[in-house]
Amino acid sequence: MASHSPPLDALIVPSEDYHQSEYVSERDKRRQFVSGFSGSAGLALITMNEARLWTDGRYFLQAMQQLSDRWKLMRIGEDPSVETWIADNLPKDTAIGVDPWCVSIETAQRWENAFTKKQQKLVRTSTNLVDEIWKNRPLPEIKPVIAHPLEFSGRSVVEKLNNLREKLSQEKAHGILITALDEVAWLYNVRGNDVSYCPVVHAFGIVTSNSAFFYVDKKKMSDEVHSYMKENGIEVRDYDTVKSDTALLASGQLNSSLINGAHVECLKDAEVTSETGLVRNGENEAEESKKSLIWADPGSCCYALYSVLNSDQVLLQQSPLALAKAIKNPVELDGLRKAHIRDGAAVVQYLVWLDKQMQEVYGASGYFLEPDGTNKRKHTETMKLTEVTVSDKLEGFRASKEHFRGLSFPTISSVGPNAAIIHYSPDSKTCSELDADSIYLFDSGAQVLKGHIALDTARFPNGTNGHALDILARVPLWKDGLDYRHGTGHGIGSYLYVHEGPHLISFRPQARNVPLKVSMTVTDEPGYYEDGSFGIRLENVLIVKEADTKFNFGDKGYLSFEHITWAPYQKKLMDLRVLAPEEIEWVNTYHARCRELLAPFLDESEMAWLKKATEPISV
Amino acid sequence: MASHSPPLDALIVPSEDYHQSEYVSERDKRRQFVSGFSGSAGLALITMNEARLWTDGRYFLQAMQQLSDRWKLMRIGEDPSVETWIADNLPKDTAIGVDPWCVSIETAQRWENAFTKKQQKLVRTSTNLVDEIWKNRPLPEIKPVIAHPLEFSGRSVVEKLNNLREKLSQEKAHGILITALDEVAWLYNVRGNDVSYCPVVHAFGIVTSNSAFFYVDKKKMSDEVHSYMKENGIEVRDYDTVKSDTALLASGQLNSSLINGAHVECLKDAEVTSETGLVRNGENEAEESKKSLIWADPGSCCYALYSVLNSDQVLLQQSPLALAKAIKNPVELDGLRKAHIRDGAAVVQYLVWLDKQMQEVYGASGYFLEPDGTNKRKHTETMKLTEVTVSDKLEGFRASKEHFRGLSFPTISSVGPNAAIIHYSPDSKTCSELDADSIYLFDSGAQVLKGHIALDTARFPNGTNGHALDILARVPLWKDGLDYRHGTGHGIGSYLYVHEGPHLISFRPQARNVPLKVSMTVTDEPGYYEDGSFGIRLENVLIVKEADTKFNFGDKGYLSFEHITWAPYQKKLMDLRVLAPEEIEWVNTYHARCRELLAPFLDESEMAWLKKATEPISV
Repeated sequence: MASHSPPLDALIVPSEDYHQSEYVSERDKRRQFVSGFSGSAGLALITMNEARLWTDGRYFLQAMQQLSDRWKLMRIGEDPSVETWIADNLPKDTAIGVDPWCVSIETAQRWENAFTKKQQKLVRTSTNLVDEIWKNRPLPEIKPVIAHPLEFSGRSVVEKLNNLREKLSQEKAHGILITALDEVAWLYNVRGNDVSYCPVVHAFGIVTSNSAFFYVDKKKMSDEVHSYMKENGIEVRDYDTVKSDTALLASGQLNSSLINGAHVECLKDAEVTSETGLVRNGENEAEESKKSLIWADPGSCCYALYSVLNSDQVLLQQSPLALAKAIKNPVELDGLRKAHIRDGAAVVQYLVWLDKQMQEVYGASGYFLEPDGTNKRKHTETMKLTEVTVSDKLEGFRASKEHFRGLSFPTISSVGPNAAIIHYSPDSKTCSELDADSIYLFDSGAQVLKGHIALDTARFPNGTNGHALDILARVPLWKDGLDYRHGTGHGIGSYLYVHEGPHLISFRPQARNVPLKVSMTVTDEPGYYEDGSFGIRLENVLIVKEADTKFNFGDKGYLSFEHITWAPYQKKLMDLRVLAPEEIEWVNTYHARCRELLAPFLDESEMAWLKKATEPISV
Repeated sequence: MASHSPPLDALIVPSEDYHQSEYVSERDKRRQFVSGFSGSAGLALITMNEARLWTDGRYFLQAMQQLSDRWKLMRIGEDPSVETWIADNLPKDTAIGVDPWCVSIETAQRWENAFTKKQQKLVRTSTNLVDEIWKNRPLPEIKPVIAHPLEFSGRSVVEKLNNLREKLSQEKAHGILITALDEVAWLYNVRGNDVSYCPVVHAFGIVTSNSAFFYVDKKKMSDEVHSYMKENGIEVRDYDTVKSDTALLASGQLNSSLINGAHVECLKDAEVTSETGLVRNGENEAEESKKSLIWADPGSCCYALYSVLNSDQVLLQQSPLALAKAIKNPVELDGLRKAHIRDGAAVVQYLVWLDKQMQEVYGASGYFLEPDGTNKRKHTETMKLTEVTVSDKLEGFRASKEHFRGLSFPTISSVGPNAAIIHYSPDSKTCSELDADSIYLFDSGAQVLKGHIALDTARFPNGTNGHALDILARVPLWKDGLDYRHGTGHGIGSYLYVHEGPHLISFRPQARNVPLKVSMTVTDEPGYYEDGSFGIRLENVLIVKEADTKFNFGDKGYLSFEHITWAPYQKKLMDLRVLAPEEIEWVNTYHARCRELLAPFLDESEMAWLKKATEPISV
């Protein structure tokens, strides 16, 4: 920091990679390397005499366990934000460095605004300072790019590019930077293995009205995938050239070798405007100046690429691919439904196995019976069931199913107090052993179940956003003064990210802005966590569909949810006295459907277990 | 419009008076005069060749009935806003006039921003053009100013002024313009009768760190009230001098004759700053420039007063009196509770009377029994029960109770189709007659009742705003694709306005910004309206209180509601099959409490009726 030019008084180390990803590859875990905190969300600030780490409610407990005494934990939502803290606590003229590849335009601009108060400066570092001191930083791995067939993607690259170019023309943009890894993967129908649990490739995209580019480490491309790209009119270029190509795009000189002679030049402004027919009788100065815009998503495009553009030339607006990707096509929806049935079968097989192990190894009373207090540990010292070994077993059951491509996130397998850590991730060396008396993963409790059902069964008019629905899952807990420190739901990708926007079901303000739409996916996952004791979370995946309401007041159209996750709720953990008759009916209907859908995947003894687990309940 | 200087191409006629009141006096109903539409909310736009009226969902039906063919109805929420419509549809350089006394700073600035797009201009008219053409405009009435005793106000003027001056000092403001009529009345503990249903006086206030002014038509002031003002250090000045005094305040020359020699001058900047001790080591240029600010509420202060100030001298921020007034003190809360018990008794007496009349005059089966289809009109032509005569009877019962000071809004008394007009107000010449088969005022329906109970019984953490709670009252209706075109709740004043901010329980965005706090009042009033057929609304008043939850997750403190309205729900109209056991219990508990609280106010036959009306229900 001291030898940087200019010298830095402070350095911000964000969690994100060059694509502002939520989950990053091992070599991009710079914030984890400097701080020791391994949660997915967080930001480190290092000054000459102290170090602070900001993270959110999901990670307060984990951060306190992992941070050394030399770090101070800053709780998002309770403590001031990093930019407010800097503006309030660091002196005038402070120089704060950040790698401009690892911060979004939006975030960098918000910081800069806060810093002007005391003439503090945000400095774009010339290199990544963490990388410079990181000995043994993992090397880049060469994982192949995989073409994602139409059978699963449901929409061709040509069709997606056409739709995208329509959007560009509507906004009078002559090109767009595609920086989010899942958007690149979705648009070009490719997948990869560059980030654990996220089937994406480290790549950028640039699309203009007549060309399309894919910036990637070419060593990851087989001949087949090269041909596939060429057939779709996508030119493959080196990952590192994206910055210089962005500059060329800005000056209208980015040309693709895949376009035939007549169209070899990038469309010029005049052509774009005549094409869209938008220039009228001289009143349109503002619109004319818009005509050569370059579209960049302020939330996912890094500050490094933005800095090669003139700010008045940039259309800062959410990428049109975010919503296009969120609204799943029928092939994707069908794939999601089928995958969840296979997954439900794996979960049941795992529960059958675990139930048997718990009885045989620990002498537990098992899944169905209340503990009688007489259970005794029967296993020898060599037979241990730990958070890690049982979660590996679950992965095994899943991997045995057709089309398995990997987990979408590290299994949160946690016993007793660890389950109160919302995003707990067990380590094989330090993890807890299961025991007969502690609550273990995927448990079910009535108040949480009430909220889970309330969201599942909600109907709501078009235009309703996730912020409005969030409370439905919380009120049953609020009745007892309880709550959970995370959102209620998020979109999920189709063989892509487990967290996918732009919509959310959350108390956070950003959830206000995106109404739920037919064919979006969203999770329904209220929870309850008692620090130091136990944790409960019920999580199903839902698809937004049209509701068959009797009326249609206001002619808006009403929406409801279809649940596609199939695994039994543990009846032993339900307090039936607090469930309403229609909630009991909901559970029974759900369980009956579980039997029906999972039967083809289960053997006789597994099916016998499932029948018992899904026997109707009554008050 | 043509002879105005400069000439106007368009004129906006808002509903509001000089104080941006929701309900205005007869002589201030300029928008009603020009358009014929009598609803409380709306805005007229008149150009040289057309006229348009904007209003909200409560008034769509009424506006369509009242507007002539020469007016076009613009539906707020569906059609573009007035400023967007002007910017999109009127030509470049259009001059749009408005009386700057009748528009708030916030609204005028929003319009001006929209108009810049086409260099359109908002012109402050020199006089009110509607007044100039309004023959027979009602003359001002001289209604006395009444001192509101401590026995009912619960807090002295001195205490309120002290608290206000603390706020001024915190914000480095040396004075505040108090423009909302209920804020002036609340601060100075006065009431009046200048606006029907709103017990306020047409008056402004200015408060500085050592002086307080009351701008009013002095003919309304008795000697007693003059003395009362003087005792409280409030100088009374003519209503019309508020504008010139605002200019004096801006230049530091507004002096009160009520301050003794040593303090006769308005505190100068230096004194204000030394008093608050906020000037530090030279880094505080921004704070220094703030030190002579004048506080004006952008939502209630008119553009006319704002225009005599330099914009960089004004602190545009919600008046601190809004929240201070919304959080009721124990004396006010007690008064509200007692008033609602007396009111519940009046409502029961009215129902008893009405039930008898309906049976005797129309041969109806009555309040308790389902119609048997045999009822026959028994009355002679001279005996008619109309929307107006029955609502007058209700007012009579209310007026017979102690401390009655008038209605808080015109009774919405409506039969059958008229009840679908959300804010219907019957006229004695045209109103409907009651009949034995139509639903009449204060009816009760199960889906609406479910939403009403869901809000009533909600518990929620501190910090929750009304926007989040609004959905609780709607989901039971949404299940059937039904909804209502109004908010779910609003604050109510203590012997002040029936609609009182700053909080709301509403789907509207402004409800997001004000968390509910202990001792706020709020209504719980979901409804359902079928155009051309009938309307239902259940409205109770609630007080926000601390909830006695078993836990206190997140240490935020949890809140709940106390209901203070007591009148039976008509059991005949409930579909018990859709009520949950706890909802039935809620109704029974509520009804038992009605009996208990209203008994002291009812005679034997009224009590017998109430007992029948409140007999426990069961499925």
